[in-house]
Amino acid sequence: MTLDKNDKLPYSDADPCWLRYTKNESLEGIPRLAKITVHGSSEQIRSALAELVYGMTEMTGSVPETAEDPNGLEANVVRLVQFDEALPERLRELAPFHDLHEEGYVIRSVPENGGESILVAGKSGKGVLYGTFHLLRLMQTGDLRSGLQILENPRNGLRMMNHWDNMDGSIERGYAGQSIFFKDNEFVRDQARIRDYARLVASVGINGVAINNVNVHKTETQLITSRFLPDVAEVAGIFRRYGIALFLSVNYASPIELGGLDTADPLDSRVRAWWKEKAAEIYGHIPDFGGFVVKADSEHRPGPFTYNRTHADGSNMLAEALAPYGGIVVWRCFVYNCLQDWRDRTTDRARAAYDHFKPLDGQFKQNVVLQIKNGPMDFQVREPVSPLFGAMPETNQMAEFQITQEYTGQQKHLCYLVPQWKEVLDFDTFARGKGTEVKKIVAGETYPYAHSGMAAVINVGDDPNWTGHTLAQANLYGFGRLAWNPDLSEEAITAEWIRLTFGKDEKVYQVLRSMLAESWRVYESYTSPLGIGWMVNPGHHYGPNVDGYEYSVWGTYHYADCRGMGVNRTVKDGTGYTAQYYPENMERYESPETCPDELLLFFHHVPYTHTLHSGKTVIQHIYDSHFEGVEGVEAFIERWQGLEGRIDAKRHAQVMERLRIQLAHAREWRDVVNTYFFRKSGIEDRHGRPIY
Amino acid sequence: MTLDKNDKLPYSDADPCWLRYTKNESLEGIPRLAKITVHGSSEQIRSALAELVYGMTEMTGSVPETAEDPNGLEANVVRLVQFDEALPERLRELAPFHDLHEEGYVIRSVPENGGESILVAGKSGKGVLYGTFHLLRLMQTGDLRSGLQILENPRNGLRMMNHWDNMDGSIERGYAGQSIFFKDNEFVRDQARIRDYARLVASVGINGVAINNVNVHKTETQLITSRFLPDVAEVAGIFRRYGIALFLSVNYASPIELGGLDTADPLDSRVRAWWKEKAAEIYGHIPDFGGFVVKADSEHRPGPFTYNRTHADGSNMLAEALAPYGGIVVWRCFVYNCLQDWRDRTTDRARAAYDHFKPLDGQFKQNVVLQIKNGPMDFQVREPVSPLFGAMPETNQMAEFQITQEYTGQQKHLCYLVPQWKEVLDFDTFARGKGTEVKKIVAGETYPYAHSGMAAVINVGDDPNWTGHTLAQANLYGFGRLAWNPDLSEEAITAEWIRLTFGKDEKVYQVLRSMLAESWRVYESYTSPLGIGWMVNPGHHYGPNVDGYEYSVWGTYHYADCRGMGVNRTVKDGTGYTAQYYPENMERYESPETCPDELLLFFHHVPYTHTLHSGKTVIQHIYDSHFEGVEGVEAFIERWQGLEGRIDAKRHAQVMERLRIQLAHAREWRDVVNTYFFRKSGIEDRHGRPIY
Repeated sequence: MTLDKNDKLPYSDADPCWLRYTKNESLEGIPRLAKITVHGSSEQIRSALAELVYGMTEMTGSVPETAEDPNGLEANVVRLVQFDEALPERLRELAPFHDLHEEGYVIRSVPENGGESILVAGKSGKGVLYGTFHLLRLMQTGDLRSGLQILENPRNGLRMMNHWDNMDGSIERGYAGQSIFFKDNEFVRDQARIRDYARLVASVGINGVAINNVNVHKTETQLITSRFLPDVAEVAGIFRRYGIALFLSVNYASPIELGGLDTADPLDSRVRAWWKEKAAEIYGHIPDFGGFVVKADSEHRPGPFTYNRTHADGSNMLAEALAPYGGIVVWRCFVYNCLQDWRDRTTDRARAAYDHFKPLDGQFKQNVVLQIKNGPMDFQVREPVSPLFGAMPETNQMAEFQITQEYTGQQKHLCYLVPQWKEVLDFDTFARGKGTEVKKIVAGETYPYAHSGMAAVINVGDDPNWTGHTLAQANLYGFGRLAWNPDLSEEAITAEWIRLTFGKDEKVYQVLRSMLAESWRVYESYTSPLGIGWMVNPGHHYGPNVDGYEYSVWGTYHYADCRGMGVNRTVKDGTGYTAQYYPENMERYESPETCPDELLLFFHHVPYTHTLHSGKTVIQHIYDSHFEGVEGVEAFIERWQGLEGRIDAKRHAQVMERLRIQLAHAREWRDVVNTYFFRKSGIEDRHGRPIY
Repeated sequence: MTLDKNDKLPYSDADPCWLRYTKNESLEGIPRLAKITVHGSSEQIRSALAELVYGMTEMTGSVPETAEDPNGLEANVVRLVQFDEALPERLRELAPFHDLHEEGYVIRSVPENGGESILVAGKSGKGVLYGTFHLLRLMQTGDLRSGLQILENPRNGLRMMNHWDNMDGSIERGYAGQSIFFKDNEFVRDQARIRDYARLVASVGINGVAINNVNVHKTETQLITSRFLPDVAEVAGIFRRYGIALFLSVNYASPIELGGLDTADPLDSRVRAWWKEKAAEIYGHIPDFGGFVVKADSEHRPGPFTYNRTHADGSNMLAEALAPYGGIVVWRCFVYNCLQDWRDRTTDRARAAYDHFKPLDGQFKQNVVLQIKNGPMDFQVREPVSPLFGAMPETNQMAEFQITQEYTGQQKHLCYLVPQWKEVLDFDTFARGKGTEVKKIVAGETYPYAHSGMAAVINVGDDPNWTGHTLAQANLYGFGRLAWNPDLSEEAITAEWIRLTFGKDEKVYQVLRSMLAESWRVYESYTSPLGIGWMVNPGHHYGPNVDGYEYSVWGTYHYADCRGMGVNRTVKDGTGYTAQYYPENMERYESPETCPDELLLFFHHVPYTHTLHSGKTVIQHIYDSHFEGVEGVEAFIERWQGLEGRIDAKRHAQVMERLRIQLAHAREWRDVVNTYFFRKSGIEDRHGRPIY
């Protein structure tokens, strides 16, 4: 295999994020790093080779030789091996292919001729690619040593990114510039950023990307037509080289808008025929097309409800069309009444996904997977885990997270979300008794799902650093790593990311580790308290605005009055939402005595004088946490200041600028929230701090 | 004088508003309405003739003859006479020209040869035009009778409309479509609407129109350059025929943005020279150009503060440039700190205009006039009268009102503003003792101002009915009539408008009269209570949103807590704002005992249990007024329903549609405001009505 100029990396001058391949003197002169041999010819192994050549060149200062070695006789090499029946016996024996899933890999030190080779082997080119990125990580973090014996299989089959990119170039809930895919209602012509993007996400194991917004507007509806399919196929081609299947979000009303039919009824034979033909057309352009992502009957999007059909009817029709080609339908469960009357306290948006979908268990085709947001509301800084996880034994499920920080500071605030995601993944649903954590359900380990996994709304745009806030790169990295292996600890992921991104300086590590570890709870502490959520401005969702959604149609209320606040979601005398959980969780949430403090106001309406498990009253907790939150940001700034000179000036300054914005806005949050509740409750802060 | 096809009315197919000239059988066969003679040759008298021919033709069903009559010998005619030294002695004696101001007129019945002529005479063509519109009103309302002896002079010299139109076609705070002047950053090519607009506003005596937004953006800055001046001159030509002087809003930073200077310092000789040259250029295109309207140092607009100069320095520099041509500078006093900290209760936006301008009294040139908003804040449904009126004996002042319903229902709600304006005009400032009403000050009767009068932000756009809500036409009509004569009663203006617009049906009159008369107080009753204002959504200013501006930079707060609400603006222990009034008013406002109920929360922070003069507590007043307000709208709908068949179906349906919107939104206002204060105060409604 010979690389050419198209394999020259990187493709763009954007920030390399964690693929920096900084010069690493400890790697110089290691004989086995001087030569690479390749067994296999897939596009993915070619990408692996290109990455390895580039990375090793950057790190060691010399270009490794790529040798032809059909019989596996070279010694002291890095050997990239994709399984093939024709592989020499010796190589087949070296790699335990029988233990590998389709996307898994092994990395092994193999003593040979008095030296040592490194074997990176996978059943598929994707496996080799993932193994290569793993090897490069080891080199960068200084963990490359003799005697490597690594075998990895991904825990989740689907490891997806959802882009909310529009073809005009805007990104819904994007805080890092414009789309890398679209501009002015066309695909971008310069694909360098798309190529580097594919490298970035493949390096953390992402294997599916939906490139357009789930709210599919007029132009985007045409992505599945001849007008745009050649462009889509080009991007799919880039993705393919990195093992990524391309998905499209589709408009449920396409048969009407594109097909000229008068209906999109999923049981109408013309509609079914239209989608089948459409699938054939798409697969004609993209043989390995991933499938559709669908937001239907949600927030004014069309869907099967128009025709008195169920979500099962709707999704099965699409699934039927995609099935012959191996495509899947990712059907979002974010369905609720978005024209609620704020006066009505019986309707509870939190109940909606479960109420809509649970009764349909068993009615979905095998190539439909339900994509369920981590919580029952909408990506708040704190909410309980969706009770739908584990509630549908016979229906494929996957989890949806949000990397883009819509409600968590919009990449102006530092908010490392891995701790939040870990809490969700480790949440025990008790679906099949103790130990039925969400991570097992969405990995298809609890029930034998045909398709399952994790998806996330991504936070990248065309900003030079991809994510707006440089440190928000950690969220992108962390999501990919957790999707690969949800058992990875927060600490391990954080350590990897810091060392790859900022090098090995111990002080840098300590400061960043502490900032990242604290940031989510710091953000929570100065924003909306105790699980109640929202308190942001309508539309753009940046805060603070305590009553921003209080008298609205969105079903997102805090019900604060002069005595207390919170939403009563109990079975006893509330909306009955707690009954959607398995008994162990239901009982814990049902009583304010056992409900965790951080979720108290999500489940209960309590007086401001209610005493938390912490020993503080609710109102004093609000005051204290809001002062502490601001102090937390002040501490971030002080610690970050201490890194001046230890980090390149550009990134140091960029982060510092964001931290200063965060501090100003944290103070605003603190004062608005404290003042709001002081004015409403009339209860003084015990410590007499300034409240207005 | 012979009319040609360019004098054919109307110019457009837009709603004729009050210039309907409905067929009126009582006018048929009156001999003196069969012939018109003209003495004078001005453009304005030509417009008067065209209007009279059109109106009389429509009303009588036959085209009147236009006769040449140089010696004034025709009898039994309508005689339009513009004063001229060469007029025949007989005509000069008939009209008391010595009692007329430049814009005044007489309408007289003159017995002649056994018949009767009608004389419409003015010192100027404008006078004749205004007299002609008056005569046409008499014909339409059925008040044309023998023995007419009318003499009218306008009370206010300046009777202006301010358009907030942008050249992209949008209208800031416009609720009736797009601009009639601009589209896509050019002037509109079809001028029919502009011509009919000129007729409409001239018919109620408007003599000055600023065509562009006081927030002068990039394109509009170029209105005073050769790029647009020929277009401006064309519009000025249309206006001229109706006696209207065209004004432009200008960008204070023009010498920098257009002139390439590095400063706009009003004391810099290059800046002064630039403006002088610019004035010469403008007057080269438009010899009777009215002058500039300027919003400087306000809401991020540039101004003299940048150079440590005063508003007197800034306006005088422009005045100096315009003076040789008779132009004036209309300098807005809407200057305040729009980046206030909501935590700071000492800064008071209400004080700003007085604090900024009062110390400068006597420093302004004679062709500068300060334009002062009716209240100290910003066109709220209720606020006190600006204390700046009457506070500057040596500085020209005029009043600014808002016809467009920014804070009063945005032409979705019926809100007839004549009653509000009457209260302002009749407000006694006590500036020179009892009887120094605002109307006398702005008419230049209290102090001998060289320029003064009334301006208003207009409510028209390119909607077919001009004003969005058909009944909002009454506000446009009413403002013009009040600017002509502020002593006209609300009842008289309303009666005129109804009869001109909807004819003589007594039931129509009674219903409309009552709806218009009640509408402002009804709107007030279901929106923000007791003079506190705001409670709207930021940006678009449509409500309800009680805390919409509470934690903002705009200086517009209600300070509601669990005990009470309101802004303490007293001298005793508040912001000291009351001291800006003359003692009689200051004392009345200073004490909650004497402060009028409807302004209580503007001046005082009181407990919800404070008892009003009405005998109700503040909180019970809030509840009661909000329920009553909605009932008021329900009553409007019922009454309007009763007019079905008595009004053309199109207008009936249009108004009904708006009333239904108003009802839905009034209910939202009621429930949000009541719920907000119930939750905050914890005090139950005495009548146990639904509050949430």
